[in-house]
Amino acid sequence: MNKPVILTGDRTTGPLHIGHYAGSLANRLRYQDTHDQFLLLADSQALTDNAHDPDKVRRNVVEVALDYLAVGIDPNRTTICLQSHLPALAELSMLYLNFVTVARLERNPTIKEEIHARGFGRDIPAGFLCYPAAQAADITAFKATVVPVGDDQSPLIEQTNEIVRRINAVAGVPVLAEARAIIPELGRLPGIDGKAKMSKSGGNAIPLSASSDAIRAAVRAMFTDPNHLRIEDSGQIEGNVVFTYLDAFDQDRDDLEDLKARYRHGGLGDGAVKARLEDILQALIAPIREEREYLSKDIGQVIEVIRTGTERARERTELTKCQVVQALGLFQLPLTRTKAGRSLSEGLA
Amino acid sequence: MNKPVILTGDRTTGPLHIGHYAGSLANRLRYQDTHDQFLLLADSQALTDNAHDPDKVRRNVVEVALDYLAVGIDPNRTTICLQSHLPALAELSMLYLNFVTVARLERNPTIKEEIHARGFGRDIPAGFLCYPAAQAADITAFKATVVPVGDDQSPLIEQTNEIVRRINAVAGVPVLAEARAIIPELGRLPGIDGKAKMSKSGGNAIPLSASSDAIRAAVRAMFTDPNHLRIEDSGQIEGNVVFTYLDAFDQDRDDLEDLKARYRHGGLGDGAVKARLEDILQALIAPIREEREYLSKDIGQVIEVIRTGTERARERTELTKCQVVQALGLFQLPLTRTKAGRSLSEGLA
Repeated sequence: MNKPVILTGDRTTGPLHIGHYAGSLANRLRYQDTHDQFLLLADSQALTDNAHDPDKVRRNVVEVALDYLAVGIDPNRTTICLQSHLPALAELSMLYLNFVTVARLERNPTIKEEIHARGFGRDIPAGFLCYPAAQAADITAFKATVVPVGDDQSPLIEQTNEIVRRINAVAGVPVLAEARAIIPELGRLPGIDGKAKMSKSGGNAIPLSASSDAIRAAVRAMFTDPNHLRIEDSGQIEGNVVFTYLDAFDQDRDDLEDLKARYRHGGLGDGAVKARLEDILQALIAPIREEREYLSKDIGQVIEVIRTGTERARERTELTKCQVVQALGLFQLPLTRTKAGRSLSEGLA
Repeated sequence: MNKPVILTGDRTTGPLHIGHYAGSLANRLRYQDTHDQFLLLADSQALTDNAHDPDKVRRNVVEVALDYLAVGIDPNRTTICLQSHLPALAELSMLYLNFVTVARLERNPTIKEEIHARGFGRDIPAGFLCYPAAQAADITAFKATVVPVGDDQSPLIEQTNEIVRRINAVAGVPVLAEARAIIPELGRLPGIDGKAKMSKSGGNAIPLSASSDAIRAAVRAMFTDPNHLRIEDSGQIEGNVVFTYLDAFDQDRDDLEDLKARYRHGGLGDGAVKARLEDILQALIAPIREEREYLSKDIGQVIEVIRTGTERARERTELTKCQVVQALGLFQLPLTRTKAGRSLSEGLA
């Protein structure tokens, strides 16, 4: 019963695609057996750079939850919960902002890079600059000790642990535990056009709900080796998206190595390699798409899953908040129930 | 029944002094009849520059509440509530941070000046930089349209109204109302040493709990006109702390003008003027001190006042949060009760 707690999740800005599957969803299916797993539908974090379009953030709450359930996330073994409905996360975020300087947030390499990538410049929303503190709140509120992150995101875990150490130092007791980043073996999957990032807005992603035709079209359009003009020519594996995808999804490693050798040698056309990848992707996505369609017929059931998970998450995060408040020796009003039957300082019996 | 809502309050960093009385408490006594008044015990805001000393912030919650009650704030007409126990304030703060840029926060003149005064430089806590957004959350959550501020703080209300306009623009409906700053006629009372700011830490304040002896000693030590060496000399009123205090507390304006004329003319000693001020301060503070001592005997009763007011404030602030979330079209889980009997999206019937 004492499994390590793992926290992960997704910003609710679009349905998930096969890049998410390869990079995180497949791992999450395994963590269900070995970890106490929480999946955060990060709608609040999505707003840090989508405040102009709250509708997009709202719509995709259910879309991402559908993706989770369709790939096999089991709500009885994984807690799926909605960030905006966990007030303790906002309360801890505001508290943690007092334990980190503006200069430190600005030095965070992940933030620096994302500010650049999003073209914010000096007009960065304050919420975006502050999101490492919000992420520290997420991680610590769930008492997560394991956090899977992209290879460019480990500075965010370092920032979390700095805040943890400062809180513990002021409290004089180790009320919070440090977390450890897990960086998945498989790096980020490129888009079908070869661009580093696969994204719905970039039009270079294969969503988990892709139709059979869409999968076929995507594989046909896929970037290969631009110098591999004739079948008999030698082809290049590196930077060839079809092979990158095969590396991610082809289970028959020996056969794949053989295929690569033949492609390098010459005599193997892109069409044959693409046919193999298409078969694999059709086989991977078909059951997900079907399950997703089935689940889509009863959205109320999906919302019920989110609601139940959020309630479970609320108990855990409220408890942590109360423990931090108590450890820091902040004022706590005595336990009582409001008219609405709610407790003012719940969690500490 | 439709009185305008006024929000004001104090950071819980020390007991209040006669500077607070002259500058705000006296006005708040009047607002009880004309406004729907909320007094915020701002313990969360106090942490933005006191995160290293949470104990101080905790201790002074009750001290400030005692001051409120002792001067005559009536908890049946004024809602006294505790900032840290109103989660909607943190939730709205985090939301509003997405609607303001870092550059805009840094340009705020109040923040600029306070960063300088506190010697933060580049190592300003992020929570301190962000506190204008938190203040916007406070003001709007209570639906306050009137906010008394010091004469240097009106930029904070401007910042609040900017956020209000941006939220309303994205929502497409005027879910939040703009607020108006009231700047009290009487400016900030100087310390007894003539320094601009009266503060407990500066050792130049007369607390509302001052003993008779302490009041006498403070008035005797009070800064006057350093060039007024002999009684027969002409004395200066400007910058003379004793006269500044008389301006604030002496109800007999005609007599006071006469006194000033005699002081300017020469022939009136500091001792006589100080005796008059001491009488006034003794008469002002004695009943406050006695009431404070009486109330101190039953701290449980004071905490009950804070608890009751906080529950009332919680209902109001939760309602506003739900209205903002709904107006922006963010995801709302359906109304339900958790095991603890709490509602996940309360306030909207």
